[in-house]
Order: sequence, then C-alpha cells, then structure tokens
Amino acid sequence: MEEIRVRTGERNALVEITAQVEEAVRHTGVREGIVVVQSLHTTAALTVNENADPDVVHDVLRKMDEIVPGTEPYYRHAEGNSDSHVKTSIFGPSLTLIVHHGRPLLGRWQGIYLCEWDGPRERTVAVQVMGSQEGTA
Amino acid sequence: MEEIRVRTGERNALVEITAQVEEAVRHTGVREGIVVVQSLHTTAALTVNENADPDVVHDVLRKMDEIVPGTEPYYRHAEGNSDSHVKTSIFGPSLTLIVHHGRPLLGRWQGIYLCEWDGPRERTVAVQVMGSQEGTA
Amino acid sequence: MEEIRVRTGERNALVEITAQVEEAVRHTGVREGIVVVQSLHTTAALTVNENADPDVVHDVLRKMDEIVPGTEPYYRHAEGNSDSHVKTSIFGPSLTLIVHHGRPLLGRWQGIYLCEWDGPRERTVAVQVMGSQEGTA
Repeated sequence: MEEIRVRTGERNALVEITAQVEEAVRHTGVREGIVVVQSLHTTAALTVNENADPDVVHDVLRKMDEIVPGTEPYYRHAEGNSDSHVKTSIFGPSLTLIVHHGRPLLGRWQGIYLCEWDGPRERTVAVQVMGSQEGTA
Repeated sequence: MEEIRVRTGERNALVEITAQVEEAVRHTGVREGIVVVQSLHTTAALTVNENADPDVVHDVLRKMDEIVPGTEPYYRHAEGNSDSHVKTSIFGPSLTLIVHHGRPLLGRWQGIYLCEWDGPRERTVAVQVMGSQEGTA
Repeated sequence: MEEIRVRTGERNALVEITAQVEEAVRHTGVREGIVVVQSLHTTAALTVNENADPDVVHDVLRKMDEIVPGTEPYYRHAEGNSDSHVKTSIFGPSLTLIVHHGRPLLGRWQGIYLCEWDGPRERTVAVQVMGSQEGTA
C-alpha cells in the first residue's frame, strides 16, 4: 500500500493524479493485475474522465454543483458541507482499474482524477496494487 | 466469499456495516490486499461516507430523494420503484476497499454503508477478500 | 486481460453484457476471486441493474437525461457531449464484482450493463479476472 498526497486549490476541483498512480504501480513491479485507488476522506472522491480538453472538467464541476448545490433549506449538518458528502457518494470513494503491461489501463482520453468537493485541502489517496510480476494475471 | 445479512427499517436508509465487513476480512486472515463488498440487489447500493454526525446521512438521503423522486410522469416500471433503481446505479452496486494491517482501510470519519433505496427489507451483501496473509500485497 | 466489443445503437443506452463477462471469466478458469470490468471511454460507463423488465432501463435512461440534460447555457466543451462525461462519472468507469463458483456473482435480477452516454458507437470494455482456480479465494 502506498499513499499519494494531493494539494487542492479550490472548493471544487478535479485534480489529475494519473502520473502518481502510474508511479505507485511501477513501484510494485506488478505487470498484470489491478490497482485500487481510494480516497481516505468523506468529501473527496475518485473518478476517470477526459484529460485532453479542460472544458470537460469545467462542465463536470459546474453541472455537479447545479445538481447538488451548497445550500438547501433542509440540510442539517452543521459543518455546511453536506453537498460535498453527497457528491462524494455519487462519484464514489474508490476506483478500481486494470493493470496491463505494468501500467493502469486507460483509454486514449482517460485520466485519473481526485475529485475535491470541499477544498482547498491536502488530501491522501491510498493505492493498492494486486497481481503478478510475470505478465499474466 | 462470505455473506452479510442486513435488515433495513425505512424505505431509504444508510445502514452502517463497517463492523461486519471488518469481521469478514478478519475471518480470511488476509493482512494486505483488497475487499470487495457487493449488493446482490438492484435497489440497494454500497458507499462510504461519514459515520460521526448522523445529520450527514439525513442530508444525503434527503438530497438523493430530491434528485431522484419516487414519482415521475414518465416512469413506466410497474413496481413503482424506478427511483430505487436509479439511485442504486448512481451510488453503485459494489465497493472495493484496500485491506491494510488486516482491516479495511478507512479514513478517520469513513464508515461503510449499505444504501437501502427500497426498504424496509432484508438485504444480502457479499464480501470477497483477496490478498496475502503475510502482510505485503 | 480480455477485451469485449460492444456496438451501441442509440445516443443513450444500457446494453447488457452479462454473457460476455461470464465468458471472459470462464476463459481464465478462475473459480473464486473478482472480476474488474472497465470502460476505456470517457463517455461510457458500467453498472449493474435489473435485467428482467425493460421498463427499468427506460426509466433509468430517462431520469438520467433529466438530471443531466444535453444542453446547458454554461457548458463550454465544444464537442457538445458534456452531459455524456458527467453521466459517465456519476455511474462510474469501472465495476468490480465477486467471482464465485467460476462466475460473476449476481443477484436474481442483476445484469451487467455497458452504459452508452454518447452513441451510437463501437465501445471496448476490458475485463480482468483475479483469483484462484481451486475454488477458494
């Protein structure tokens, strides 16, 4: 198990961590298997989405903010970040990807993102790699 | 593979099952690896969220009910639980967590929840643990 | 690792791929373990939901379209498929299921679906199976 630290700069942000996850996989020497990437926070999630056009990230953040706004008359949680908790469960607290040829398997436009829903903060992402170093799962 | 039974008491509820998942991991003797927790139902999901302030659970349930209400003019499914199916896919039918030092790895405020979206019912959650008993993945 | 090709016929569609995933698991000979099913696209996701009444799929698609419509005044992404990216992160790019008795473990009404959010297209789904051929995880 390895931990990645991610510093986020906004309240809501998708921060790409593909390189860090690739490095964590490389450290294990696993060639074929899986990698689990897990947020250790209740207001930060993980996802995979496009890493070519930054407008995609903008639109995802904007739409999620519209679906789950920061204030609602019925929110009771005193910390004022109920929206952050909802968004975290919607995107999901962990992500499992295939490891192939010693790297997380990603399509041409796919990048791995930490989803910050209550920043700016320093976040910890745990990475666990399972599999074989011989090239067959 | 081990099964956990969960009795839910409301139509919508987040029922914490952290202790049961921890016990299932302990039974296997795995020290380093992963645990997959899977709902065997199409109207119950799994998530991780805060287990300190119960108001978080209240707010998550209330907001999800607003995003996906129980009735819509265009719903066709005769059982009247289309919302339950939508919420299940939004939160996800299974959850993969890292196992570290013989336990599911969880941040300070994280708990594992069965998400009941069409209760009250008795639900079955399956748990599979993969890894090494020697303390390195 | 094995790849499944899926041809989708609509812009939004849930295409059942249970049989193909079962076949990929069978090919490996794994009896107890897990299977990771991963979309290699940023506008197609994976989920599990009911495969008995097709009205469930209708209602899920319709509701998701209402939550995340195709156009919003604030969308910037020039390809015009921002909704597809949002839906993909909401449902999730990959799915991990338990393998038990040589098959993906599924409840009575559960089927595995590729979620097409920007079709029609030909999609690639990668499948990785981990576990033991001897019948214990």
